[in-house]
Amino acid sequence: MEFKISDKMRNMKPSIIREILKQMSDPTLISFAGGNPAADSFPAEDIARFSDELLRQDPVAALQYSVSEGVPSVREAVRAFANRRERVAKENDGVLITSGSQQILDFAAKCLCNEGDVVAVENPAFLGAFNAFRSSGARLAGVPMEDDGVNLAALEAVFAAPEKPRFFYCIPNFQNPTGKTMSLAKRRAVYALAVRYGVPVLEDDPYGELRIAGGPVPSIKSMDTEGAVIYAGSFSKILCPGMRLAYCVCDKKLMAAFVVAKQCSDVHTNVWAQRVCEAMLTRTDMDAHIREIRKIYAAKAALMMEQLDEKCPQVRYTRPEGGMFIWGTLPEGADMPAFVRECLARKLALVPGNAFMVDEEAPCGSFRMNFSTPTPENIVKGVSVMAGVLAAQGL
Amino acid sequence: MEFKISDKMRNMKPSIIREILKQMSDPTLISFAGGNPAADSFPAEDIARFSDELLRQDPVAALQYSVSEGVPSVREAVRAFANRRERVAKENDGVLITSGSQQILDFAAKCLCNEGDVVAVENPAFLGAFNAFRSSGARLAGVPMEDDGVNLAALEAVFAAPEKPRFFYCIPNFQNPTGKTMSLAKRRAVYALAVRYGVPVLEDDPYGELRIAGGPVPSIKSMDTEGAVIYAGSFSKILCPGMRLAYCVCDKKLMAAFVVAKQCSDVHTNVWAQRVCEAMLTRTDMDAHIREIRKIYAAKAALMMEQLDEKCPQVRYTRPEGGMFIWGTLPEGADMPAFVRECLARKLALVPGNAFMVDEEAPCGSFRMNFSTPTPENIVKGVSVMAGVLAAQGL
Repeated sequence: MEFKISDKMRNMKPSIIREILKQMSDPTLISFAGGNPAADSFPAEDIARFSDELLRQDPVAALQYSVSEGVPSVREAVRAFANRRERVAKENDGVLITSGSQQILDFAAKCLCNEGDVVAVENPAFLGAFNAFRSSGARLAGVPMEDDGVNLAALEAVFAAPEKPRFFYCIPNFQNPTGKTMSLAKRRAVYALAVRYGVPVLEDDPYGELRIAGGPVPSIKSMDTEGAVIYAGSFSKILCPGMRLAYCVCDKKLMAAFVVAKQCSDVHTNVWAQRVCEAMLTRTDMDAHIREIRKIYAAKAALMMEQLDEKCPQVRYTRPEGGMFIWGTLPEGADMPAFVRECLARKLALVPGNAFMVDEEAPCGSFRMNFSTPTPENIVKGVSVMAGVLAAQGL
Repeated sequence: MEFKISDKMRNMKPSIIREILKQMSDPTLISFAGGNPAADSFPAEDIARFSDELLRQDPVAALQYSVSEGVPSVREAVRAFANRRERVAKENDGVLITSGSQQILDFAAKCLCNEGDVVAVENPAFLGAFNAFRSSGARLAGVPMEDDGVNLAALEAVFAAPEKPRFFYCIPNFQNPTGKTMSLAKRRAVYALAVRYGVPVLEDDPYGELRIAGGPVPSIKSMDTEGAVIYAGSFSKILCPGMRLAYCVCDKKLMAAFVVAKQCSDVHTNVWAQRVCEAMLTRTDMDAHIREIRKIYAAKAALMMEQLDEKCPQVRYTRPEGGMFIWGTLPEGADMPAFVRECLARKLALVPGNAFMVDEEAPCGSFRMNFSTPTPENIVKGVSVMAGVLAAQGL
């Protein structure tokens, strides 16, 4: 039978990253292309201990159906965790436990966009967000990134356009792919524009806990007195991603629609994961655990930057204050796709920067490097491969 | 801030069942309204054992990111399980591991429907399916149920209508809510109509393993030589629902779109659940386990039917050959909503039949009873409440 795929799904292109990752079964390949957290950061022993206790003492509490919003005691623990340093979840906000933060991006588009509506996005930004929005039939309006976050004039122009965007998507901390952090001044300005134009902000914060340099910057959600910000927090980088566990904090009026979307999408999030997370949050010192993760990431980031400085001085790159990514830019006029292709031929995977652009066809001289997944040895080897290709291409 | 909810989500009504279940915190209430599997059917000890082994011996295999299709070895184990008695997954079919079968219903609408497109559905049928389809902006064309499945003339009329449905949704085994099973002749006829009119069949089979009477009837998917059937299988009723684990079997061409939808929706299914399920399928005697579940369900169904025969002879009901539900119908002219309301006032929850109808406002004299969740004692008490209300209402 011939299937007639819906317009919104037929127009989705296969992800460049997925195509690259398909070649990853080659064990001799070094990957700077992934986005996996470092496996040695997983609190595997605690998870095993709490899981075992739960499944022996109260299996039905992990195995039976639950409510779409998330297990009530888990929601309480998550709210306390989110609010432990700043006020993310306010009185009028609900907390929804989701199957990873990808699901929050999916719900935002589903609940706020009719097919053809516009969503404003940082450009470049996380490809999985673009695809989630497109899969609801949304069109993307990219707002260029500067070193301290989006270009505000361009953002205001998009907000003021006749087709007002349904929301604005941004990753203020250690952005994927650029590693850039939005300044406090820009966060305040973005919030003010959002309120002035009535455009909600979807603040995606999967990396916020992974700060390795500089001081914390308040989240946009913490400034939110108008219920204008949808906050997406994740446990993928501070516990583990295989659990698929994240949380959304937003105004209860919008949350009601998200809960219906959750019911329609997968009924509720895996209960075992919720309960194990609750035990981690309430019975371990999460901040001590997060400090250990930061040490791992800080060492890997420092090594990659040191190697780049030493071997690839012609590559400009962002020095990230956290997260998992470094954004490299080749000298003016260089052929970035040819550089990435040749690196792959020499067994080093990088992601071409245009994979993260709203318009993948536009010229782009940048590429993304991940430092959380490769071993220190492979970080050294991989940067040497880059240096060899730069030399071979006369860059 | 005022949120402008998308048309498709704004028009979703809160589920009647959810509203009823909200009253369930009252511990004196007896519920025939839920759809939970019996907790004593969960293989809790095996799950605890395999989980512990996995998390101690190879935690990264449970905790790291994985591929959207599902862990390859899990997909292989699921394919073998699905094909152990009949050929569900054929050469041209892919297997996708999903976060519960609700997600398959969501993907079918997302991948096959533009907003406003028509989906044909058994009427009445599973409310969660209706809501999943509506949340993609689909409109529903209900096809009346008869004792042996849908009315074929009505189905053909819907297939032949100018707005051809994008697919046809049915639950051939022990349907929710009616408990009815589609006959072999009707399955063949439905398949033939699907091929003739080019309308894919979405065969939802969450209860198929829970047969308590009669002999097995081949799935529609097993007849599928044209790649016209999308099969949804679930582990919620034979392992446990809290894991959120199900699988979709369909033609690889359509599966490619489903995999993109999966990537956009929640990236991949919880890996712990996938690995534990794999161990259950490959290292335990699942058929022996399923025989034990059937015994529990057969005893509960028999008790409820015996009680209905004895105390409520004026209620006609379907004698299900499996599943979890009995569909009761009041004498002609009775006021079903008043009956359900009065039962609730006397602390027995039933679901009014119109909750499962495409048009919830249409008159309906039926209601749904669940026998898997209540204890035997509560089955006896609950049917006595019904008898008291029937007497009080002069029925």
